[in-house]
Amino acid sequence: MNKIWNNYPEIKNELKEVVALMKKYTKCKDKKIENSILDLIESGGKLLRPAFVLIGSKFGDGDREKSVPTAAVIEMLHMATLVHDDVIDESKLRRGKLTIQSKYGKDYAVYIGDYLFCCCFKILATHSSLRALEIDSNAMTRICIGEVDQLNSRFSTKLSVKDYLTRISGKTAELFSISLFLGAAECNADKKVSRELKNIGHNLGMAFQIIDDILDYEGNDESIKKSAANDLKQGIYTIPFIYAYRNNKNAFSEIMEKEFYTDEDVEKIIKIVEENKGIEMAKELANKYIEKCFKGINRLPENKYKKVLKELAEWILIRTY
Amino acid sequence: MNKIWNNYPEIKNELKEVVALMKKYTKCKDKKIENSILDLIESGGKLLRPAFVLIGSKFGDGDREKSVPTAAVIEMLHMATLVHDDVIDESKLRRGKLTIQSKYGKDYAVYIGDYLFCCCFKILATHSSLRALEIDSNAMTRICIGEVDQLNSRFSTKLSVKDYLTRISGKTAELFSISLFLGAAECNADKKVSRELKNIGHNLGMAFQIIDDILDYEGNDESIKKSAANDLKQGIYTIPFIYAYRNNKNAFSEIMEKEFYTDEDVEKIIKIVEENKGIEMAKELANKYIEKCFKGINRLPENKYKKVLKELAEWILIRTY
Repeated sequence: MNKIWNNYPEIKNELKEVVALMKKYTKCKDKKIENSILDLIESGGKLLRPAFVLIGSKFGDGDREKSVPTAAVIEMLHMATLVHDDVIDESKLRRGKLTIQSKYGKDYAVYIGDYLFCCCFKILATHSSLRALEIDSNAMTRICIGEVDQLNSRFSTKLSVKDYLTRISGKTAELFSISLFLGAAECNADKKVSRELKNIGHNLGMAFQIIDDILDYEGNDESIKKSAANDLKQGIYTIPFIYAYRNNKNAFSEIMEKEFYTDEDVEKIIKIVEENKGIEMAKELANKYIEKCFKGINRLPENKYKKVLKELAEWILIRTY
Repeated sequence: MNKIWNNYPEIKNELKEVVALMKKYTKCKDKKIENSILDLIESGGKLLRPAFVLIGSKFGDGDREKSVPTAAVIEMLHMATLVHDDVIDESKLRRGKLTIQSKYGKDYAVYIGDYLFCCCFKILATHSSLRALEIDSNAMTRICIGEVDQLNSRFSTKLSVKDYLTRISGKTAELFSISLFLGAAECNADKKVSRELKNIGHNLGMAFQIIDDILDYEGNDESIKKSAANDLKQGIYTIPFIYAYRNNKNAFSEIMEKEFYTDEDVEKIIKIVEENKGIEMAKELANKYIEKCFKGINRLPENKYKKVLKELAEWILIRTY
């Protein structure tokens, strides 16, 4: 488990329960299925989303009988989307380990993702409420639409800032948002507080994704640049590109005529994006969401978990940045 | 809608409500998503599974508020699995129309399948019960495991009759079984009757799949033989093959050494299967399930839908056979 949780022993203990529940519900007579999911569970994801569910629950009655299963469902929904995303992206590695699709093949990965979805709904059926089911399935619908949006807009230079924001709102912010919200709502928190947590989650998720997309362009780390290259080769343009392109279409004209990008083309694109204020403006945008996020946190009622949430948001959003 | 339903106007009317509900819940601001699902809904599937839900409900209070959404969920779960199966099989056509994956690509089909899953759970959340959610998600888990089983056993000649039965029990019989069961159970039918319906659905589904697999080997229709060829080329051995191989391994020895099968090889395999009683024995097996199915139907309490169920089972199982 990520070292960050050593600072928050109560959350860490509850996260252990979440992991145990995930393992219980993904047990399967087919050991290949079980082990590939076990690999995923133990591959060292940060468990941010389930932690947010737990933190959200502390603004209500904090009942573990509710918060732990809700957290497990959210993390497994996240895992299911990762498995299917890797199929689409043909990603070789995830968290430094071979992806299910590169290890066992695409076909297998499609079913493992489906199996994970099923396990989520099994947990919901046993431990949760129809309201949580509704919220989870609505969120998943928006995530799917966000992913399809991304597919549809491949290689489209018509992508506007608004389109990008809609896309990442579905793709990333949605799960952060319902994590904090469901934790609170399932534990009977005040409605106004639950709504505030929902907005905090949304703004945090938006900032998180924008920063991630910025790091792809400015990271010194080769592996990070590879991620930008991978996106660009698939025709996925993120916010630094969109700003720079809007600022100076001409600078891109030659390179955009190509049918596919070589590594040198990618290097060139990254440079043009930097020169045309793509990164600078993306940072300003991220800052707006970060600000909204912290303003929201400050508005929360006093509670020792308000501080925890603030520290985590700082860790996530201000890290290398 | 299939002509068969003209004989059963009440079922036909309710099926229309099912289709309307499916359309309502799959509405989407992304018109490409909505239209590709609309294509699926309108592509002329027989709607057997939702019809079984409706018939099951008649052994309880027949409350449409329960039976119609349950039927829609089952049909959409079925559609979701079809979309993902087509990704795996790389099928070009389904019900005579281009599959989503051949029309829009694999990536898109993965998300459309996911989107359909989400829509099912949205209907469940709004119209149904946690019990139905549990039964549906358990069934889906078994379907996934059945599909993975099939992937794992590709090109394995160790496949036993028992393995085959386990596989088709998950892959096909499960949904037939829960269709009749959930229709009855959600409409408060007597528990013993619900269980009887569950068994009838299982036996009907088993017979249905075995007959389907037999037709692949003995059908005169070229398109049917193509289906056998497609399975064989993917290393999927069904019951006629399994029996014939068990009866006379030597007859297959030369052909089984090949790394892949040409059309001629497939012709040869089909002939060897026939000569070694593969089809004959598979028919005997199908008959056992058909017999069990009708015995179960006869045990049901008197009710005008008992006759309907019997006629449908005859239509499904005795058709060209």
